[in-house]
Amino acid sequence: MSLNEFSLIKRYFTDIGKSRFAPILPQGDDAAIVEVPAGMQAVMSIDTLISGVHFPVNTSAADIAYKSLAVNLSDLAAMAATPAWFLVSLSLPDNDEAWLDEFSSSLKKIARTFQLELIGGDTCQGPLSITIQITGLVSKDRYVTRSGARPGDKILVSGMLGSAALGLAHSQKRIKLPESIAGICLGALNRPLPRLELAEFLSSYASAAIDLSDGLVGDLAHILKLSNVGAKVNQASLPVLAWIKENKAYQYALSGGDDYEICLSLPREHWARVVQWNQQYPDCQLSEIGEICESGYTLIQDKQTIDLDDWQGYQHFD
Amino acid sequence: MSLNEFSLIKRYFTDIGKSRFAPILPQGDDAAIVEVPAGMQAVMSIDTLISGVHFPVNTSAADIAYKSLAVNLSDLAAMAATPAWFLVSLSLPDNDEAWLDEFSSSLKKIARTFQLELIGGDTCQGPLSITIQITGLVSKDRYVTRSGARPGDKILVSGMLGSAALGLAHSQKRIKLPESIAGICLGALNRPLPRLELAEFLSSYASAAIDLSDGLVGDLAHILKLSNVGAKVNQASLPVLAWIKENKAYQYALSGGDDYEICLSLPREHWARVVQWNQQYPDCQLSEIGEICESGYTLIQDKQTIDLDDWQGYQHFD
Repeated sequence: MSLNEFSLIKRYFTDIGKSRFAPILPQGDDAAIVEVPAGMQAVMSIDTLISGVHFPVNTSAADIAYKSLAVNLSDLAAMAATPAWFLVSLSLPDNDEAWLDEFSSSLKKIARTFQLELIGGDTCQGPLSITIQITGLVSKDRYVTRSGARPGDKILVSGMLGSAALGLAHSQKRIKLPESIAGICLGALNRPLPRLELAEFLSSYASAAIDLSDGLVGDLAHILKLSNVGAKVNQASLPVLAWIKENKAYQYALSGGDDYEICLSLPREHWARVVQWNQQYPDCQLSEIGEICESGYTLIQDKQTIDLDDWQGYQHFD
Repeated sequence: MSLNEFSLIKRYFTDIGKSRFAPILPQGDDAAIVEVPAGMQAVMSIDTLISGVHFPVNTSAADIAYKSLAVNLSDLAAMAATPAWFLVSLSLPDNDEAWLDEFSSSLKKIARTFQLELIGGDTCQGPLSITIQITGLVSKDRYVTRSGARPGDKILVSGMLGSAALGLAHSQKRIKLPESIAGICLGALNRPLPRLELAEFLSSYASAAIDLSDGLVGDLAHILKLSNVGAKVNQASLPVLAWIKENKAYQYALSGGDDYEICLSLPREHWARVVQWNQQYPDCQLSEIGEICESGYTLIQDKQTIDLDDWQGYQHFD
C-alpha cells in the first residue's frame, strides 16, 4: 500500500494507447479536451463490469482489462464507428501492484491494437469494478442504428454464437466440455473480438445493427421493436460449434449472451457484398440466419415454429 | 423486483435534462451520437461515487443523485466549459422502486438546472455505486488548465472552504456543531454548488484553475506542480465559517476535501475584474487567499510560516 492515488495513476494509467485523433489536452487535468474533426460525429457509450456479476471473481487482471475495453468497442462496432478515446473509472479493494501491472499492460495492448487512447479517469478503493466510457467517431450521418430494418431484409450475424455462454457454463461446472472445445469457448468468453472491421460494410449496406451482449433472441428483439418489424430465425442456420449441434444445445446460441458479435439486417440487393466480405475476411464470416418480416417473431426449429415474442434473453434484475 | 433492466431504464432514465446541444441520436441504441459544433471542443471527465466511500451509506437517493452530477459538473466548471451531455452507469443492490423514483427525480432536477442531457448508460445489480461521465463544450482553445499559473498571480477561491468537511465530521459524530451551523455544513456536504457561472470569467482572466475536491492544500499543489511555480497562502484570508476561526479549526479548510469550489490563479492586472465579479455574483464571492511565487509552498499562520510541501490533502489509498 505504498502508492497513493496520484502515483498509481501515473504509474499504471499513463500512455495507454494512441488515437488517430490526438487529444488537445490529455489526462492530468480536471478533464480532457478533444476535438471532433469537421464532418464527423461522436459516438458515446458506457459499460460497467463488476466482479462476480460480469466476470467470475477469479478472472485474471489481464482478462478483465481486455473484456472491459472489448465490450465497449463492440458497442462502437455496432454503430459503425471508429474508436478514438476512452475514460476509465476503476474501483479496487486495494492497490495490489502485481494486479495493476497486469491490468495496465493488458489495457495498453488492446488500446494500441484498436488505436484507442486513454484520456482520463479516476480510481478509488471499493469493491472491484471497472467502468469504461468510450468515444468513437463516424462520418456525419453514416452511423447505423437499431431502427432501420425493413421487411424482406436478410438477418446476418458475424462469427459464432453461443461459444462464450458454453465457456461460462463450463467454468461454472454446469456442463463439461471436451478439452479442445473448452479452450475455444473460454477464449470466446474472456477475449471476445470486437468486430470493428465491419464499420465500413455496416455504414454502406446495413439497414440496422446491434451488438450481441444479452443473447441473440433478446438483442434482435430490440431491432424489431425499434424498426417496428418482425423476424423469422432459422435455428439450423445459426453459426455454432459442432458441439452445440450434436448436443442440441441451441439455447446457448439463442439466449446465452456475451457473444459480442454483430447482428445486422441487410437489404437483399446487397447480398453480393456479403459473399465478397466473406472471401476478404475469413475470420469474421457473416452468416444469414433469417429474414425480417412485417410482424411476428418466430424461430424455425426442425419442423416446429416457435413463438419468440415471450422468449427472454439474459436480463439483469430478473 | 418486477422491473427488468429495459423497463427500469425506460421508467427512470428517460427524458433527463435537455442540452442546449441536442444529441443527434439520444439513448436507446448501442451508443449515443452527438455533434460538437464547429469552433468548439469537447471537455470530458468521469467520476465514480461509491456508497460508504464517497457518501455515508444512509445518504438519501436524492442527495446521491445530486452529488454524483455536481462533482462532475464541478470538473467542467474548473475547465471553463459549458455542460452538454452525460452518461450514467448505475450499480444497485436491488431495484427498489421508491429509491429509483427519488434518484431519478433528483437527477432530472439538477440536469434541467444545468442544461445537461442524459444520453446513455447502463444499470446492473451490484454494490451501490454511480459513475457519471460528463461532456461539456468550450470555444476552441478557451479552456483553462492547471498549468498556466505565473509568479505574481493572485490565488483566489470561490465560496467558503471547509464547510463540507465540517458537515462530514459532524455527521460522523467526530465533532458536535451548533444546530444552525450543522445545517449549513450538511448542505455544503450533500449539495455542493458547481460553480459553472465562473466559466466566462475563467476563460477571460484566469491563468490556471482547479476544482477543490481533495482539499485546498493538495489541490493547489497540482496547479503548482503543473505550472512549475510555488505559492504563499494566508490562513487568515481563507473564506471560512466563523466557527472555524473561533475553534482554530483551519485544517477543515486546508485539507478537508469535498468543497467543490474553484481555486484559480489570476494575473494582477485583472484584479479589478474580481471586484466587479463580487458585486455581480454575491452568492459566489471570490476571495484572495495568497500569491503565486517562484518556488516553495508555504502557509502563513498567525506569525508562523509553515512548509506545505509535505502536507497531504485527502488521498485515496493512503
